Amino acid sequence: MEIKQDDRQLISWSKQDGGSFENADKPNGQHLASDFSSLHSKDLLPAKNGEEVTKHFLQELLNILLAYISKSLNRSSKVLDFHHPHQLKEGLEGFSLELQDQPDNLEQLLVDCQDTLKYGVKTAHPCFFNQLSTGLDIIGLAGEWVTSTANTNIFTYEIAPVFILMEDIIFKKMHSIIGWSEKEGDGIFCPGGTMSNLYSVLLARYHFFPRVKTAGMLALPPLALLTSTHSHFSIKKSAAVLGIGSESVFLVKCDESIALILMKYNLVLYPQGLVPFYVNATAGTTVYGAIDPLNDIADICERFGLWMHVDAAWGGGLLLSKRHRMKLQGIDRASSITWNPHKMMGVPLQCSVILVQKKGLLQECNQLCAEYLFQPDKHYDVSYDTGDKSIQCGRHVDIFKLWLMWKAKGSEGFESQVNHCLENAEYLYYKLKSRKDFQLVFQSQPEHSNVCFWYLPTSVRNMPPGPERDRELHMVAPKIKAKMMEEGMTMIGYQPLGDKVNFFRCVFSNPATQKEDVDFLLDEITRLGRELYS
Amino acid sequence: MEIKQDDRQLISWSKQDGGSFENADKPNGQHLASDFSSLHSKDLLPAKNGEEVTKHFLQELLNILLAYISKSLNRSSKVLDFHHPHQLKEGLEGFSLELQDQPDNLEQLLVDCQDTLKYGVKTAHPCFFNQLSTGLDIIGLAGEWVTSTANTNIFTYEIAPVFILMEDIIFKKMHSIIGWSEKEGDGIFCPGGTMSNLYSVLLARYHFFPRVKTAGMLALPPLALLTSTHSHFSIKKSAAVLGIGSESVFLVKCDESIALILMKYNLVLYPQGLVPFYVNATAGTTVYGAIDPLNDIADICERFGLWMHVDAAWGGGLLLSKRHRMKLQGIDRASSITWNPHKMMGVPLQCSVILVQKKGLLQECNQLCAEYLFQPDKHYDVSYDTGDKSIQCGRHVDIFKLWLMWKAKGSEGFESQVNHCLENAEYLYYKLKSRKDFQLVFQSQPEHSNVCFWYLPTSVRNMPPGPERDRELHMVAPKIKAKMMEEGMTMIGYQPLGDKVNFFRCVFSNPATQKEDVDFLLDEITRLGRELYS
Repeated sequence: MEIKQDDRQLISWSKQDGGSFENADKPNGQHLASDFSSLHSKDLLPAKNGEEVTKHFLQELLNILLAYISKSLNRSSKVLDFHHPHQLKEGLEGFSLELQDQPDNLEQLLVDCQDTLKYGVKTAHPCFFNQLSTGLDIIGLAGEWVTSTANTNIFTYEIAPVFILMEDIIFKKMHSIIGWSEKEGDGIFCPGGTMSNLYSVLLARYHFFPRVKTAGMLALPPLALLTSTHSHFSIKKSAAVLGIGSESVFLVKCDESIALILMKYNLVLYPQGLVPFYVNATAGTTVYGAIDPLNDIADICERFGLWMHVDAAWGGGLLLSKRHRMKLQGIDRASSITWNPHKMMGVPLQCSVILVQKKGLLQECNQLCAEYLFQPDKHYDVSYDTGDKSIQCGRHVDIFKLWLMWKAKGSEGFESQVNHCLENAEYLYYKLKSRKDFQLVFQSQPEHSNVCFWYLPTSVRNMPPGPERDRELHMVAPKIKAKMMEEGMTMIGYQPLGDKVNFFRCVFSNPATQKEDVDFLLDEITRLGRELYS
Repeated sequence: MEIKQDDRQLISWSKQDGGSFENADKPNGQHLASDFSSLHSKDLLPAKNGEEVTKHFLQELLNILLAYISKSLNRSSKVLDFHHPHQLKEGLEGFSLELQDQPDNLEQLLVDCQDTLKYGVKTAHPCFFNQLSTGLDIIGLAGEWVTSTANTNIFTYEIAPVFILMEDIIFKKMHSIIGWSEKEGDGIFCPGGTMSNLYSVLLARYHFFPRVKTAGMLALPPLALLTSTHSHFSIKKSAAVLGIGSESVFLVKCDESIALILMKYNLVLYPQGLVPFYVNATAGTTVYGAIDPLNDIADICERFGLWMHVDAAWGGGLLLSKRHRMKLQGIDRASSITWNPHKMMGVPLQCSVILVQKKGLLQECNQLCAEYLFQPDKHYDVSYDTGDKSIQCGRHVDIFKLWLMWKAKGSEGFESQVNHCLENAEYLYYKLKSRKDFQLVFQSQPEHSNVCFWYLPTSVRNMPPGPERDRELHMVAPKIKAKMMEEGMTMIGYQPLGDKVNFFRCVFSNPATQKEDVDFLLDEITRLGRELYS
C-alpha cells in the first residue's frame, strides 16, 4: 500500500512544538517520520521501554485530532467529502479498509486515523443540520477520552466507584429538575433512546403484571399500548421485541384532542378484551419537535390507572431553560421519562437515560441475583452495584462526559445553550415565513428547534395544488440533498410524514451554529435548487 | 473548594516539553497554571479565538492521561485506592462530586479528571485479575479517541460511511474465521454480550414464529429454551425481557452428556406442550471458562430442528489461535454466535457482536421501515444503512477501535496475545497444583484462561471435609478480597458456584500480565491469608 506524500508529512512529531493546530500541515519534524514507519503496535506499552514511543504516538494522534476539530469548526471547510460505498470499498489514495494477517506500522495507522476522519462526516460543523445530535463539546470530548482511558465497566461499585456515584448524583439532579420529590426517582443509563423507551414498556408491564418475568406473556391478558402517530418508532419496536406484538400499539392522531382519543380508546379497547396499560407521550417528536399535552394525558392516565411514559429524548433539554420548560408542564406526573443528553444538551454520543418515578422497580424487574457475578457478601455497601438493575450485564460508562460538562457549564451554561438553539430555530422560521420560494410545513411557531419546510422551485410554485404537484414536490428534497452531499458544504435531512410529501427538517442542537449558518443553508438550497430546476 | 498544591502542579502545560510522562510530577510551566483558573468551557472552541485554549486544554489532558497510563502499567503502583461510597460522596481532598449551577474553571476540571482516575480502578494494571475484560491496548485507545472526536451515529451510511464499511469488513473476517461460506453470515455490534445473547433469542423466535413480531407471544405455543447450568444469566434475562418468561429456560447439567440430556429434554418438554426452539451452548463460561461440546449439540439441534446459539463472548478469542481454536470445533454449525472482542482480544469496552448465519434475518426481524428515519429514496445504495437491522435506533460506533487494532496487530498479533494469556493460565495452574495451601476447584487443565481455586488457611486445611469446613472456607475469599482491596496491590474476583463455596477465579486477558505477576498474586493471597488467619 502506498502512502501519499501529503500524508507522510503529517505523520511526524516535533519535540519543539508539542503539536500546534497548524503543524499538521507543515513538514516540521519530518526527519522523525521514519521512526513511525519502522515501529509497530508491539513497540507501544506495555512493551519494555515502550513509554517514549507511546507518548509520541498519542501526541501525534492528538495533533491529528486537533487539526480535525479545527477544520470541523471552520466554515470554509466541507461538512463531508462524499464517496459511494463501492468507491470507499475499492480504496481511495492509499486508504484501504481491508485487513491483513500481518501488522501495519504506526505511520500507516496514523494515516488511517486521518483518512477515517477525512472520509467521514464532520458532525461538529456549524452547517451540519442533519441529525438531532450535532456539535462537538470539547469538555464532553475530554470526558470521553478520560472514560476510554479508564476502560472500565459500570456494573459494580468495585470496579467503577467514582462513575457509579456520579450516576447517582446526576439522577438526583435530573429528578429534581423534573420535579420529583427526594423519595421518588430511580434511573439507569441506556445505549440510546430506543433502549430507554424499551425499558419504559418493560417496567410498565412488570409493574402491572409481575408474573410476566417468570411466566411470560402467556400468563397475561392481551395488552394494548397507546402512543401518538408522530411518536418514535421505538414504541412499536419495543412491543415487537418484548413479545407484546407491534399490532398492540394503537396510534392516536395528533391533530385531535389526545385526551378525548384516549378516552375513546379506553372505551374501545376494553370491549375487545384488550387491556391498555401504557401511554407514551412525546416531548419533542423526531420530525416536528412537537410536544404532546402532558397534563391532559396525565389526567387520563391517573383516571384509568395507566402507566404514563414521556419520551423526552429530544425535548428533555428544554427543562434546563426557564424560558422553555413550561412547554413540558406535567412531566413530573410521568411514571417514566426518556431523556437523551446526547441530543439537545450536546453531550457526545451516546448518553441516554431512563428515569423511573417508582424507586426499586428497575431492580425488581430486572434482577436475577446471579451470585456468580454480583456477590452479596462483599465488604462495601453493595446497594451501589447497578448490574441487577440493567437488562445489560456490562454497561459502557456514559456518565462521566455528562458529569464533567455539568461541572464545566453549570445548569446555567446548559440553559443558554438550549436558548441559543431555539433562537436559531426562530430565526429560520421567520426567514422562511417571508420567502416565496419556501413553504413551511406547519404555520405555527415551532415548539422545539425543528423547522420543517419545502423548497419550491418555480415550476412547482406555478402548479395548482393536487397529486401532480405533490409528486413533483416529493422529488425536490431528495434531488437537492443528493447534490448537497456531493458538494458537501452543508447537510440537512428530509423525509415524508403522513400525507406530507418529502420536506426538509432543520434541527438545531449545535452551539457552534450561528445565524450566518442559517442564512448559508437557505442560500445553498436556493442555489442548488436553481441549478437543478433552471 | 480547595485544590491541593500537588494537583495544582499538574495543571500546567509546557510549550517546551509537549508533555512527557514525567512532567506530570514536575512543576514546570507552573507560571501558566493561573491561565486555566481564569478560563472556562465557554473559552474553548467554538468560541472565537478558542483554538489556542482548546489546544492547551487538550494537551494538558493528554499529559494527565499519559501519566495515568504509565502509572497503571507500573508494577509498584497500586491497582486501586479504595474508598467506601460514603467517603467518596462526602468528598475527598477537594474532589467533590456535587454539581453546581455555576461553571467551574478549566483548572478545576482538569483536577477533576485526575481525581476521577485516581479514585478509580486501574484495569490496565498487570495485577488486575478481577474481570474478563482487562488491560489497555494503546491502539484500541487511540481508536476510541478518534471515534469520540468523530462523534457520529452508525445507523446510516450517510453520516458514518467509513465506520459502516468497516463493520462490513470485520463481519466478513469473523465469518471466515468461524468457517461460514461467503454466502452466509450477517451481524451487528451490540452494547455488550447480554444484548448479543438477547438478539440470538429474538432472532430464533422470529425465525420459527415470524408472527410474533406483530401478534406477540399470545399467537405462539409455549416455548422452551435450553442452556447449561453454568451458562451466563443473560439467557434467562432474555427470556424474561422478551416475554417468554424465565421459567421457560431449562438448565442442562454440565457434568452429564449434554447430548443425552438434550434428547431427554426434548422427550420431556414436548409431552408438556412446550416447544423447545433454542439451545444455547457456551464457549467459555464466565467462571470456569468451560466449553460445551459444540459438535454434539449441533447434532442434536440439527436432528430436532432447533436454533443453536453459541455464547462465545469469552471464548471467541480462542478462534484466533491455531493452538486453541480446535476447542471450538463445530462452532461453524451455529445459527448465531456472540463474540466479545472487548474480552479476550483486549479491545476497549464495549465491543460485542452477534453473528447470524442466515443472511437477511436481522433485517426482517427488526425492520419497521420508519421512512421518517431511514429514507429509501436517497442517492446512494441504502442497503448499507444498518438502522433497521438493530433493535436500537442510534448505535455507538464500536467498530473503529477493533478495526484499527486488527490493522495494527494483524490476525497473528491477536493470536500471540491469546496464546500468551493461556500460557499464564497454565503457569498458574501448575503452580497451584504443587501447593498445599491452595486447592484447585477442578483438577483438569483449564480449557480457557480461567483458573479457579481456594486458598486454604492452616485452620481450614486441618478440618475434615464436611459442612463445617465448607462454612469456614466460604468466608476465606471474601475476607481476603476485602483486605486486598483496602491494600490495593492486586485484585481478583471470587464467587460461589453450585455446591462449591466461595472460591477465587483468576482470569487472564491482559497482555501486560507476566509470570512474575502470577507469582505476586499468589504471594499476596498467602500474605493476606496468613495475616488474617494467624
